[in-house]
Amino acid sequence: MKFSKFGQKFTQPTGISQLMDDLGNALKSDQPINMLGGGNPARIKAVDELFLQTYQTLGNDGSVNATGTATSTTALNSMGNYSNPQGDAAFIDALVGFFNRHYDWNLTAANIALTNGSQNAFFYLFNLFGGAFTNEAAEHNESNQSIDKSILLPLAPEYIGYSDVHVDGQHFAAVLPHIDEVSHDGEDGFFKYRVDFAALEQLPALVEGRIGAICCSRPTNPTGNVLTDEEMSRLSDIAKRYEVPLIIDNAYGMPFPNIIYSDAHLNWDDNTILCFSLSKIGLPGVRTGIIVAAPEVIAAVSSMNAVVNLAPTRFGAAIATPLVKDDRIKQLSDNEIKPFYQQQAKLAVRLLKEALGDYPLVIHKPEGAIFLWLWFKDLPIDTVELYERLKQKGTLIVPSKYFFPGVDVNDYKHAHECIRMSIAADEQTLIEGIKVIGEVVRELYDNARC
Amino acid sequence: MKFSKFGQKFTQPTGISQLMDDLGNALKSDQPINMLGGGNPARIKAVDELFLQTYQTLGNDGSVNATGTATSTTALNSMGNYSNPQGDAAFIDALVGFFNRHYDWNLTAANIALTNGSQNAFFYLFNLFGGAFTNEAAEHNESNQSIDKSILLPLAPEYIGYSDVHVDGQHFAAVLPHIDEVSHDGEDGFFKYRVDFAALEQLPALVEGRIGAICCSRPTNPTGNVLTDEEMSRLSDIAKRYEVPLIIDNAYGMPFPNIIYSDAHLNWDDNTILCFSLSKIGLPGVRTGIIVAAPEVIAAVSSMNAVVNLAPTRFGAAIATPLVKDDRIKQLSDNEIKPFYQQQAKLAVRLLKEALGDYPLVIHKPEGAIFLWLWFKDLPIDTVELYERLKQKGTLIVPSKYFFPGVDVNDYKHAHECIRMSIAADEQTLIEGIKVIGEVVRELYDNARC
Repeated sequence: MKFSKFGQKFTQPTGISQLMDDLGNALKSDQPINMLGGGNPARIKAVDELFLQTYQTLGNDGSVNATGTATSTTALNSMGNYSNPQGDAAFIDALVGFFNRHYDWNLTAANIALTNGSQNAFFYLFNLFGGAFTNEAAEHNESNQSIDKSILLPLAPEYIGYSDVHVDGQHFAAVLPHIDEVSHDGEDGFFKYRVDFAALEQLPALVEGRIGAICCSRPTNPTGNVLTDEEMSRLSDIAKRYEVPLIIDNAYGMPFPNIIYSDAHLNWDDNTILCFSLSKIGLPGVRTGIIVAAPEVIAAVSSMNAVVNLAPTRFGAAIATPLVKDDRIKQLSDNEIKPFYQQQAKLAVRLLKEALGDYPLVIHKPEGAIFLWLWFKDLPIDTVELYERLKQKGTLIVPSKYFFPGVDVNDYKHAHECIRMSIAADEQTLIEGIKVIGEVVRELYDNARC
Repeated sequence: MKFSKFGQKFTQPTGISQLMDDLGNALKSDQPINMLGGGNPARIKAVDELFLQTYQTLGNDGSVNATGTATSTTALNSMGNYSNPQGDAAFIDALVGFFNRHYDWNLTAANIALTNGSQNAFFYLFNLFGGAFTNEAAEHNESNQSIDKSILLPLAPEYIGYSDVHVDGQHFAAVLPHIDEVSHDGEDGFFKYRVDFAALEQLPALVEGRIGAICCSRPTNPTGNVLTDEEMSRLSDIAKRYEVPLIIDNAYGMPFPNIIYSDAHLNWDDNTILCFSLSKIGLPGVRTGIIVAAPEVIAAVSSMNAVVNLAPTRFGAAIATPLVKDDRIKQLSDNEIKPFYQQQAKLAVRLLKEALGDYPLVIHKPEGAIFLWLWFKDLPIDTVELYERLKQKGTLIVPSKYFFPGVDVNDYKHAHECIRMSIAADEQTLIEGIKVIGEVVRELYDNARC
């Protein structure tokens, strides 16, 4: 069968798709696997119990008919009816109340749309603000009616899942980071990325009007970096100056799942597009994303929902609504989810220091999210090759070069020296996975010294 | 904010989007509404009871821990983990077993992918097989490297939701129907659309290689027409001759929800793409679509799932898996859903005949789906205007002109003389809605006679 160019773009094997297949296939194999590669959140007991209890309540809250059967339960209403394209109205109302209770944003329902997960939101937003634009300045010049605009990622590395979302080609510009040596919990051996504002403000694409939006994940997937309030404020100013929106991927951020350990605040205004997700509070299977933005953006997202999906899925909304209404989603995040991952990060750092303390490993300061980002300075092989060697020994991580959308990594050595490892695994998996990483990496450095 | 051309396409107000807003707003108004306009399935008591019982079971089937809490239930596993981009593996396995039990298709898991509802499937498929293609014949001629291909709809009218799904422009070619006068249950006053194969086989776009796929819904939304086995067989032959796939939208068809009253059979081969949905068995809120196709199509859909949605939603799969495994989904369709809509169609036809028996109303022979398609021959106004007048009186239907993707309806009078009315409403709503339709239409014809 012949596929369109659109189809060919999506079916072409890319490095990322091969990697994803690899991860999927490895999970299906008989060999035991130390899975430090994926993005699945941990199963946390208190979290699971609350979700299960909520699930059961939704199936029993209806009126009981003559034969003793509960009908018109929330569960049935959610299964049995479409929402409108903007998303489940009861959940949107609950979110409006929640955000206005905790922030001074003065939202209305016109500021919120739901999507089938965060990836779906970024598919919409990056095509809405990246790709071919009508060139208003050249309206009467036929040869130049179109202008190509990119999504500006102010701090590479960024999320692997952004790379392929444009319906036609790739439209990213990225700025390489400042790398600062920092301490963490009083210890050395850490670094932190910072936005290179000098490079950012001189970026030809920005200055020349070829940027359609600025986007960052905060905390950052893959690094666990949290952009400081000051960095965010400067990005917001630049976005306003160039009349483009600032998109913040809040999948790991405030106020839920709140996997963030640094002192940071969340702001919103009508030039900001905030993207939230239910995945990392422990509900990835329900595919529910939340966009908070100006009404014109919400209207556009609703239109795209209508055409791409008719309407978003409702079950995640049904489960989350009672937890958002009475703030349990925030208590769960603050009291269970955040401490869990903070503990996991501590454990993983300790194990890594024990295994590789005398070797040139530096770790990105763990400020949030569910990953550690490890930099093996001057590693004798690139980390795609390291990934292969670790996989041979039953340990899966993700090599760094796929986390640089908008960067030509051929000329950037650092992009070949890092790996992302998940800390969502159980203690035994962390212990055994890091043991393998230690053995393989020590051997590589030791052999290079000979 | 400035939107890309892609964004502008989706945010431009179209006739359809205005209509949809209209329907949505009307539902929110204080005035009582006879809702014969939407596509929501009916709430059928036996169906609701089975879904609710299944829902409750999924929340209680786990092991019970020391504190008496059920954990690891199917519900929790489904909420707490991503599926892979192809979709929930357990549901796909259940579907493979189901289809192979009832048909001789010899499917494997490589033949099935899940999507976030049927609309999502058509967004993928119509962009995969429609739009810009690499022109292999003109590979060395730079000015002609691209060829534009359309989705061929062999029988207009077709589903309203197809119209806007292409990421760039519209790519449809449609063939106008033969209209045969037929009887129904021994009565006159009915018609049936038939494919005009002479016109189809001479269609320049088909003959000249500018068709990427052939697609039909069966039963057809909006008309309730069921293409005969002979028509399907001829379409299948034509698709093979031109080496393009035949896509069948089975949202209302066999084997579930099986809202189909004519004698028809379902075939599949590796040039056929079958699309199923859980919506019309009563689960529209869970947004679950099913594609059965050759492995290369399934791989492409999985790749698009990964980029657009990361992975499809899982809850619909969890609810449907036990019902597919033991064929209850088929029993429910045959014993509850199909008879319900057949009864509704009978009632609506009787009411319409009573209201407009002496007027030039003909009804498309009700062969399936959840709609009646009414043709008001030589109606003095077009049905967009009729829609407005009915809306003034609190009754909502959908006018016909939006159901002709690929047809220039300006030159086609028939496209302005029909309406789609849902028969999923309760009896009282049908009675009152049809009463209003009768009053308004009788007055229009009566005044024209004066």
